[in-house]
Amino acid sequence: MPIVTITRRLRFNAAHRIHNPVMSDEENARVYGKCNNPNGHGHNYTLDVSVTGPIDERTGYVMDLGLVKQVVTREVIDKLDHRNLNVDVDFLRGINPTSENLVVACWHVIEPHVQPARLTRLRLWETEHNYVDYDGRNAS
Amino acid sequence: MPIVTITRRLRFNAAHRIHNPVMSDEENARVYGKCNNPNGHGHNYTLDVSVTGPIDERTGYVMDLGLVKQVVTREVIDKLDHRNLNVDVDFLRGINPTSENLVVACWHVIEPHVQPARLTRLRLWETEHNYVDYDGRNAS
Amino acid sequence: MPIVTITRRLRFNAAHRIHNPVMSDEENARVYGKCNNPNGHGHNYTLDVSVTGPIDERTGYVMDLGLVKQVVTREVIDKLDHRNLNVDVDFLRGINPTSENLVVACWHVIEPHVQPARLTRLRLWETEHNYVDYDGRNAS
Amino acid sequence: MPIVTITRRLRFNAAHRIHNPVMSDEENARVYGKCNNPNGHGHNYTLDVSVTGPIDERTGYVMDLGLVKQVVTREVIDKLDHRNLNVDVDFLRGINPTSENLVVACWHVIEPHVQPARLTRLRLWETEHNYVDYDGRNAS
Amino acid sequence: MPIVTITRRLRFNAAHRIHNPVMSDEENARVYGKCNNPNGHGHNYTLDVSVTGPIDERTGYVMDLGLVKQVVTREVIDKLDHRNLNVDVDFLRGINPTSENLVVACWHVIEPHVQPARLTRLRLWETEHNYVDYDGRNAS
Amino acid sequence: MPIVTITRRLRFNAAHRIHNPVMSDEENARVYGKCNNPNGHGHNYTLDVSVTGPIDERTGYVMDLGLVKQVVTREVIDKLDHRNLNVDVDFLRGINPTSENLVVACWHVIEPHVQPARLTRLRLWETEHNYVDYDGRNAS
Repeated sequence: MPIVTITRRLRFNAAHRIHNPVMSDEENARVYGKCNNPNGHGHNYTLDVSVTGPIDERTGYVMDLGLVKQVVTREVIDKLDHRNLNVDVDFLRGINPTSENLVVACWHVIEPHVQPARLTRLRLWETEHNYVDYDGRNAS
Repeated sequence: MPIVTITRRLRFNAAHRIHNPVMSDEENARVYGKCNNPNGHGHNYTLDVSVTGPIDERTGYVMDLGLVKQVVTREVIDKLDHRNLNVDVDFLRGINPTSENLVVACWHVIEPHVQPARLTRLRLWETEHNYVDYDGRNAS
Repeated sequence: MPIVTITRRLRFNAAHRIHNPVMSDEENARVYGKCNNPNGHGHNYTLDVSVTGPIDERTGYVMDLGLVKQVVTREVIDKLDHRNLNVDVDFLRGINPTSENLVVACWHVIEPHVQPARLTRLRLWETEHNYVDYDGRNAS
Repeated sequence: MPIVTITRRLRFNAAHRIHNPVMSDEENARVYGKCNNPNGHGHNYTLDVSVTGPIDERTGYVMDLGLVKQVVTREVIDKLDHRNLNVDVDFLRGINPTSENLVVACWHVIEPHVQPARLTRLRLWETEHNYVDYDGRNAS
Repeated sequence: MPIVTITRRLRFNAAHRIHNPVMSDEENARVYGKCNNPNGHGHNYTLDVSVTGPIDERTGYVMDLGLVKQVVTREVIDKLDHRNLNVDVDFLRGINPTSENLVVACWHVIEPHVQPARLTRLRLWETEHNYVDYDGRNAS
Repeated sequence: MPIVTITRRLRFNAAHRIHNPVMSDEENARVYGKCNNPNGHGHNYTLDVSVTGPIDERTGYVMDLGLVKQVVTREVIDKLDHRNLNVDVDFLRGINPTSENLVVACWHVIEPHVQPARLTRLRLWETEHNYVDYDGRNAS
């Protein structure tokens, strides 16, 4: 059977502050600039979830996109939407919410829920000019 | 000379919480739902600034769009971008930052700076599914 | 109080065939071209619902956009989405589903449900290159 | 019959230089900045053509959008697309191609061709951040 | 010579019904939900066609994008646009028109026509929130 | 550490003419069609710059996206924006400005400036319907 990748786009609106408590306030301000604003700022995030596998001969689906939406909404979107990423989200506890750290954290939450298909890419848009991609790879 | 309306689109990313201190916490939660989350959430806002006037015969412009950008960036965008709308912005002091209140507050800041052309519309997008328009009218 | 217009964008996916039973098959084919294909075609429609009124001093809202979404979804979107506009929709019975006829039919369904605010415009996108606007006016 | 406005979006890609020969080179450079670059620059323009009228009871159309496309393509788009607006276009002879001047020139070319419906607005996007609107009004 | 991938985006509007005649009506309704609506629904589809090869030293092209457009329009778009995918399309005979099955069918039609360049990806958007990718791979 | 790819989108507006002086005027006209218009045409180009590397444990960044923007603006965008690609740009001297040739030229300019992260893809959009991708590979 042909191997196809299906992608579902989902959205959430959240506040965050980029800040690493290991660094001094001065270093945080210098490294992160306006993203370190003490009272935070926010974004309309877009998350593209890509799942890969063979087409099921009976259904004609790799995986029901309605199910992808349901699972990702329950596991990730409902916990991030209309929240403050620095304080409100269990799976982000202790994580500095850069886009890079955020996409990796989402990967670990979503990845077990799409089997037997495989999660092959998460693309997280922070604005319409910036996005980050993660495919599960780590530096050795 | 022909009367033309020119529009410049600008963006800012901000955190906010919809909350009216006149109401109890319970009423705030009931009226505003997830928008009342105590630690806030955020958006990539888009502001479309429309200015109307006759075409200047010498320049072929109603008003230099570069100047519209410069004025609105200085007076509004630089004060809103990467900020928390509930606490960081002088011209929003004491204002519950709904889109409606926000667009009216921006109108009063921008309006004096585009003369002799006339500010004829502000359109504020909070997400790609919601926007509000203000043209300076008040209920009598 | 300032008068503001708020707009909520909603989507539905539907099949239709442009066909007027008053005309012969030949005339239908000539007038409507490929839009008259006997087995139909379809679109991802976008409906922008605009509601105007004074800002409520207590809530800071003209009308809760969540309520606009809820009402329009119940009255219109749920009846149009994943349907065939020629046969599946009660409020389109006997109507040739051009964009013009469709937007006027939606107006009459939605208009009573947004009071005391006023429905001031419906914009219906059939594709990203075509849209129609209706504001309730009739030719005298 | 209900009065509806229909809009067709069309595109063209063109080069231009903003320059007024009445002014000195120094003044042109000062007034127009980088838009005065001697060898020109260019844009992907988008033109939204809006036509208003009653719905025809037989066809369900205000005016066939396919006909709007055909007329505007023949009269305007084919003359502007992949052209240099300063030298290649008959109806722009002697006109400094600012967006304001361009939209007014297009109005006069298109306006006679959509009757008995009425041309009610042209919106010309120069970039995705700038657009100009013309509705046929002149300063008295 | 550098190896570059070029992509042309094309659109078509079509009706379809997701239904597998091998399954009972009850199972079809359960598996496909509203996508199984007996009278169909429809979409504005977007197809991104990616072709890869070395840049031709004389033309500076991998393959003329105008030719990609012409070939794909003739072989695929003209057969799908303003059609019902369940009954009107020769190369979809007997195929349940899920996005996955549709993109694979298009691959087999387009692939011979872009040589000596190689077709390397088809991306089919069913809505702006869903797309599927195929690169010609099959499960062994 | 996880390996992430970050992408920054930037824009420039430029004029160009597709023309190869090695070919006769007749051959140029035949091969390039309207893109060979002697006085040029133009585009709003979009350049997506993708950089890959491990997340820095201290900053949570692969590379500061603000720095990506700054470097690419200085080295590429400021030299292309509001310019004529056939005559105004030092790093395009002698190059026929097809999208393919343009993206490869940008690669060589940008590539040294993002180390120790790696430039992994440039995507150049000429219109919203066409784009080209380069990842540094050459035909052997």
